[in-house]
Amino acid sequence: MNIKITGTGSYIPETIKKNENFNENIFLNTDGSLINNENDVIIEKFKAITGIAERRYASPDLTSSDLGFFAAEKAIANANIDKEDLDYIIVAHNFGDVKHDAVQSDLLPCLASRVKHSLRIKNPKCVAYDILFGCPGWIEGVIQAHAFIKAGIAKKCLVIGSETLSRVVDKHDRDSMIYSDGAGAAVIEPSDENGGILAHETGSYTYDEAYYLFFGKSNNQELCKDTRYIKMDGRKIYEFALTNVPDAMKTCLEKSGKSINDVKKIFIHQANEKMDEAIVKRFYKLFKMQPPEGIMPMSIQNLGNSSVATVPTLFDLVINNKLPNQSLSKGDVIIFASVGGGMHINAIVYQV
Amino acid sequence: MNIKITGTGSYIPETIKKNENFNENIFLNTDGSLINNENDVIIEKFKAITGIAERRYASPDLTSSDLGFFAAEKAIANANIDKEDLDYIIVAHNFGDVKHDAVQSDLLPCLASRVKHSLRIKNPKCVAYDILFGCPGWIEGVIQAHAFIKAGIAKKCLVIGSETLSRVVDKHDRDSMIYSDGAGAAVIEPSDENGGILAHETGSYTYDEAYYLFFGKSNNQELCKDTRYIKMDGRKIYEFALTNVPDAMKTCLEKSGKSINDVKKIFIHQANEKMDEAIVKRFYKLFKMQPPEGIMPMSIQNLGNSSVATVPTLFDLVINNKLPNQSLSKGDVIIFASVGGGMHINAIVYQV
Repeated sequence: MNIKITGTGSYIPETIKKNENFNENIFLNTDGSLINNENDVIIEKFKAITGIAERRYASPDLTSSDLGFFAAEKAIANANIDKEDLDYIIVAHNFGDVKHDAVQSDLLPCLASRVKHSLRIKNPKCVAYDILFGCPGWIEGVIQAHAFIKAGIAKKCLVIGSETLSRVVDKHDRDSMIYSDGAGAAVIEPSDENGGILAHETGSYTYDEAYYLFFGKSNNQELCKDTRYIKMDGRKIYEFALTNVPDAMKTCLEKSGKSINDVKKIFIHQANEKMDEAIVKRFYKLFKMQPPEGIMPMSIQNLGNSSVATVPTLFDLVINNKLPNQSLSKGDVIIFASVGGGMHINAIVYQV
Repeated sequence: MNIKITGTGSYIPETIKKNENFNENIFLNTDGSLINNENDVIIEKFKAITGIAERRYASPDLTSSDLGFFAAEKAIANANIDKEDLDYIIVAHNFGDVKHDAVQSDLLPCLASRVKHSLRIKNPKCVAYDILFGCPGWIEGVIQAHAFIKAGIAKKCLVIGSETLSRVVDKHDRDSMIYSDGAGAAVIEPSDENGGILAHETGSYTYDEAYYLFFGKSNNQELCKDTRYIKMDGRKIYEFALTNVPDAMKTCLEKSGKSINDVKKIFIHQANEKMDEAIVKRFYKLFKMQPPEGIMPMSIQNLGNSSVATVPTLFDLVINNKLPNQSLSKGDVIIFASVGGGMHINAIVYQV
């Protein structure tokens, strides 16, 4: 039985936050001291490393589950299925619904219940749950949907990644410029066509790495010490990702029975342009090759890092020919790969 | 292939919060007006309906993932497995790690990563993720573990339910007396023995019911209006549960091929004693029977409602002969059932 993505959708928030919009921020070191540089220098350096020129923020009246609902509606329409036939709605996120200007995560009910409610699905047999798995949450949701179909307990699954990271950033931390908001979704079904999910691979590295990404205090020590923000040890994450992501991708490719020469595109979590390029370079180095031109579609320049939303959004853009100079054809072998808080890594080898 | 629970563990916090400890609370109606009754009358009425005399609160230095870790350690020891052989660690919760006296949920990293870190498991192939699914989250985690084993992607899974509801209660709301803290865990594996998971059933009712349990403002309108607490529409939940839980249990029992006369125990989510009794009564009524004496082990009197932790904790107590007048024998057919925020319902028919 082949299991394929039969529809995709994404929601890209309308509000554009450009790098120059951070010019008035007061960027501090973790010890609270002022960073010894002008903001335009800080921002220029940030852009050179991450590739991010602008990012999207959700409208103040929307929450993560709203974004997920918008992406879900599109994916269901694109798959041309009856929404009442869905067996699972799986929503990957990391912070729940955080209202604009609020500090609490709202997790009750789970976001999948909210999305299903908004979709006006009546069928109670459609199981709606959330998965928390760091940035790789959407890919892991697809792996779980695949398992449910293989186990015979589902036929049609909707997997959504939705996040509003703009609501959990410390504006005194340079890393706050990385994060953005968005949602992507896909419908997963058995198919008579060739291809689909050929192999998958997941790793959870928690022994030393569990807290590389964490919820921590503001760099501004005068702010409420009880309020926490998304924080990361960027250097450790960079080294960790470079060591482990290429290996996971290689293992997954070997499991799939496909050759490195079959790989047409790599859809990698949009975490940081330089890091993503280094991962793909090292992946090809494992095969004593250089990455082919255009192998890695990127959206980070304009969309930033929206966590669980980056991979499904990027795939939705490319498969619908909405990203310049990028396209996919029937039969193309591609790799989805992600790395993020936990630390978790995963990959799927997929044939379009 | 039979898939069985091969080990269980639970963590019951030491701090006992008795009903009389609520004597000094100022209980308000949702409109902020004072409830027109003395506290001892309110508490007596509360006890008559819910059956709760006391509940457990986690020590201030512990969070939900700590409780989950304690239960997990015991379940691994009880299953007599090498922790490095685990393929999955699934943690069900609803609010993440909420520090004592904090209002934010800490979800980064996910709680499964924290538990795995605390267990000092090195094997990165052990996938650690969180599921949010209301109170039925632990049972749903077991259903997912079962699917992963059936799909051939896992052999040994650890499923944990952990919650610190005491950290998200509105002390001006009478319902705050329902909630408690705790954790339960089980190891799920293929087995050569007879029995195991015979059938399962899940429903997500979101069309009208999604917000029956929700995160809302304090009844004290003078408190910070941005801080939210666990809130419920008790009457609607009661009616909903009575209508839908018995049906789900019956469907599940029919799928299992077992007869109502085979059922030896029902482990139902400890939500409210009167509601649980009414559910089981109506379940038997579907078979034109009365519930047999002792069919429903209860821990709510002393442990309150600890959400995802109630069912695995109760099972752990009974299977280890730690609940008076309750025991299980090899071959016994039992039902696990739960209902909670989402609104979600699930059931498993299991043979010991």
